[in-house]
Amino acid sequence: MMAGSDDPVTGAACPCCLPRRGFMRGLAGLGAAALTAAPAAARAEPSPYGGLVIDCHGHYTTEPPAMLAWRKRQIDALNDPAQTPSPSDLKVGDDEVRESVRGRQLKLQAERGISLALFSPRAGGMGHHIGNARTSLDWSIVSNDMIHRVVTLNPKNFVGVCQLPQTPGVSPRNCTAELERCVKELGFVGCNVNPDPSGGFWTDPPLSDRFWYPLWEKMVELDVPGMVHVSASANRNFHATGAHYINGDTSAFMQFVTSDLFKDFPTLRLVIPHGGGAVPYHWGRYRGLAQDLKRPPLSELMRNVFFDTCVYHQPGIDLLMKVVPHENILFASEMVGAVNGIDPETGHAYDDTKRYVDAAALTDEDRARIFAGNTLKVYPRLAGRLAAAGLTP
Amino acid sequence: MMAGSDDPVTGAACPCCLPRRGFMRGLAGLGAAALTAAPAAARAEPSPYGGLVIDCHGHYTTEPPAMLAWRKRQIDALNDPAQTPSPSDLKVGDDEVRESVRGRQLKLQAERGISLALFSPRAGGMGHHIGNARTSLDWSIVSNDMIHRVVTLNPKNFVGVCQLPQTPGVSPRNCTAELERCVKELGFVGCNVNPDPSGGFWTDPPLSDRFWYPLWEKMVELDVPGMVHVSASANRNFHATGAHYINGDTSAFMQFVTSDLFKDFPTLRLVIPHGGGAVPYHWGRYRGLAQDLKRPPLSELMRNVFFDTCVYHQPGIDLLMKVVPHENILFASEMVGAVNGIDPETGHAYDDTKRYVDAAALTDEDRARIFAGNTLKVYPRLAGRLAAAGLTP
Repeated sequence: MMAGSDDPVTGAACPCCLPRRGFMRGLAGLGAAALTAAPAAARAEPSPYGGLVIDCHGHYTTEPPAMLAWRKRQIDALNDPAQTPSPSDLKVGDDEVRESVRGRQLKLQAERGISLALFSPRAGGMGHHIGNARTSLDWSIVSNDMIHRVVTLNPKNFVGVCQLPQTPGVSPRNCTAELERCVKELGFVGCNVNPDPSGGFWTDPPLSDRFWYPLWEKMVELDVPGMVHVSASANRNFHATGAHYINGDTSAFMQFVTSDLFKDFPTLRLVIPHGGGAVPYHWGRYRGLAQDLKRPPLSELMRNVFFDTCVYHQPGIDLLMKVVPHENILFASEMVGAVNGIDPETGHAYDDTKRYVDAAALTDEDRARIFAGNTLKVYPRLAGRLAAAGLTP
Repeated sequence: MMAGSDDPVTGAACPCCLPRRGFMRGLAGLGAAALTAAPAAARAEPSPYGGLVIDCHGHYTTEPPAMLAWRKRQIDALNDPAQTPSPSDLKVGDDEVRESVRGRQLKLQAERGISLALFSPRAGGMGHHIGNARTSLDWSIVSNDMIHRVVTLNPKNFVGVCQLPQTPGVSPRNCTAELERCVKELGFVGCNVNPDPSGGFWTDPPLSDRFWYPLWEKMVELDVPGMVHVSASANRNFHATGAHYINGDTSAFMQFVTSDLFKDFPTLRLVIPHGGGAVPYHWGRYRGLAQDLKRPPLSELMRNVFFDTCVYHQPGIDLLMKVVPHENILFASEMVGAVNGIDPETGHAYDDTKRYVDAAALTDEDRARIFAGNTLKVYPRLAGRLAAAGLTP
């Protein structure tokens, strides 16, 4: 593909081919297989990008019924511990696991031109506020093992990201063994970190508190990033996907602005999903607050903090691209996730974020970074997973 | 001023005068006195707008020291009620009240071309979580009376908006007498409603709950709107102006999306400050969620819900103008408020939001609506205050 860019006909002279020039060399040609399944009609504009597209934020929201039944049994047993199921009690056949992602995730990946997704358990399902530390650990093991099975059966389409066995009031040190198991034994490349295990009551310390340091230490040691992602809201003031999620993102960013967390952990990387919550829209406010508070400029913070592209309309994505450095933006769709419908204003799915990124005013290099390059940098273990799946050129 | 717009020379033909055409007739000419004080250099672009500019969101953040000392005495007395000061103990001279707004608010109004501000007590100072219902009532009386004095001494620059004596766990019915006093006796035109009197723990029911109905009933009866505005955060997860404020806005909007509040109160009007929190940036998400949840389209909600322009950078304001109906946007700066510095990228104050609205792509009619017309509609008692202050043409 790079060869053509040196050709004056398919390169500089032709508007259709022009954007193909300058692909990040390591990415060129990746993801072509997935893209062949994408109907041309699924594009708002003829897409200039034919490389790898990594969705860094996918949740397993089509779990086999037996898995959800196991969780129900576990919760039902909270008042009768003798009935508590063990993780090994869950029996799901490979065909059922395959089938669970075939109809939605794989179909949508193919239709939309997404090569693969970093895949984690349903965020709203983590439910860290339910039961105790043992409840959370068992459910995390079940959830992470199921992600591992999806990944093992579909190694070209999914890479694992784990849920952590968090519990309100319990040290995040309690999560390090499960994180290590997921990374070292299951080949996962990151984790989701819930900044509010209480489920909407925010009873634990902020992410900058030393309470969290054992987890940050383990993440640094394993060289895996975390996505800061709350779970379900047990507080009826907060609709989960419409308020709690976005509030969690916004709150975490401001915790970073006001703390020295990344001075203590200069290689820690945290991804704030949902386009960074409210932050890009209020970028001037955050720049100004950092200045008023005599904190370093946001550019310094952005060595460690990244935003995804889960923003479900073109003007939102355009704002994100306009104000946030492009090296801090990671493509994602949260698919199959928060919003499932078709936008009557466009005729396309709200969460088809690839369409918005395709249409955004970006250089070829920046688009390639956002679709894949940045994610490969933020998740260094990902390159090895792609190689193992035969996804390197 | 309207005469010139019919003149082909100063009207259609001249680019400088072109935007002067089509002013909302009732607004033209208002605010000219304040504008003459604005140095021409304070404009990003030659401003097309010479009419009334109402800042619907100003806080009294330069209180006389004696007022803050009164509050300190009140809080210090929480464990020794015999020492509790009474509202009448506060003594502040008129000169001190005049002086308190001269250096900042009046100076900035003049410099920026803001005609007047709807002025309410410092939001972070409301502190509804401190003490009990009596604490909150006394402090609200002190705070609202002081706003009344500022307004009385500067009737062309300020119109009162009150703090409510909210207390976590106490029915908002408890606020109706003070609201009525402020509106009927002090001439206030609106109130601030704290959706989380607990100060960051969100222990009261959502705004759609019947818990709040006595307050909504009184607001409808008095025909005054409310600005949904949290106070200080007592939860260290939430920086006040960087997280708690924005989260409060976002949460309130989603409470409205998921409820029938405005079916029960079709004439209730609520203003969500800080540009609507995260909502415009995630407008697609909210449109999609309303659709998924089988709720009415957002356009229906926007009969009762309004956003201000407290967004401190041009791209944010541009997004707001792009996605939110212009009749739902009310000019505001939150001045002197959340962010005090100069933006090094522009050389101007972050919170000089007039500059962003001046530069936004708007028709003359829409700009006039945003600067004044929408606010006059949302706050129907405001017209009478302007007339009383000699601010009608």
